[in-house]
Amino acid sequence: MNVPRDASSTLDPKFDSNGLLTAVLTHHQSGALLMIAHMNEEALATTLESGEATFFSRSRGRLWKKGETSGHVMRVVEARIDCDQDCVWLKVEPAGPACHTGADTCFFRRIDGTTLVRD
Amino acid sequence: MNVPRDASSTLDPKFDSNGLLTAVLTHHQSGALLMIAHMNEEALATTLESGEATFFSRSRGRLWKKGETSGHVMRVVEARIDCDQDCVWLKVEPAGPACHTGADTCFFRRIDGTTLVRD
Repeated sequence: MNVPRDASSTLDPKFDSNGLLTAVLTHHQSGALLMIAHMNEEALATTLESGEATFFSRSRGRLWKKGETSGHVMRVVEARIDCDQDCVWLKVEPAGPACHTGADTCFFRRIDGTTLVRD
Repeated sequence: MNVPRDASSTLDPKFDSNGLLTAVLTHHQSGALLMIAHMNEEALATTLESGEATFFSRSRGRLWKKGETSGHVMRVVEARIDCDQDCVWLKVEPAGPACHTGADTCFFRRIDGTTLVRD
């Protein structure tokens, strides 16, 4: 009898129809949400083995280590997985801004009605 | 000339080919990642108007207010959006556990190699 994913003590990631799961990165100290990206099986394995966040770039169609060009590597301090094992939470120590705009976090704007406020 | 989504001061959510975006919920005080879900346009509008996290359930194919049966409503303290406006971060005050297992967060297991540890 198989143990369901939400009660299991074994890693058994559930990839979607595109072979991907969602990765959520927060700052290991401040707790701030930094970015969201996607991982295929290889990206997840690489991340867990190397301790550096590695994703699957859907636009580029290839593995993409965060910081491979910018140097803004995200070192994994802790990795957790959700109940149905289709989402991974990485608490990371960032070597630089998470966002391509240069902001520390991709979530640099607050929603106020239909306005976005930078605060 | 249109301002690109990552520089705009106007909410202009980018829904995927299924009409959905990702919503990330964290506890407004502890910063803990509670859960991930999806929103269509109506779910996002309902969330922002009502101040209570409402999603689109892909399995049920309908709008789903978190806590509609359990009572574990997630009150939105702050809503933020990421650079390309395809992901929303909600800082919430939960009225109860986020996870269907009864855990405070869906991310109740840490990944240690191929083992999942509850800590």
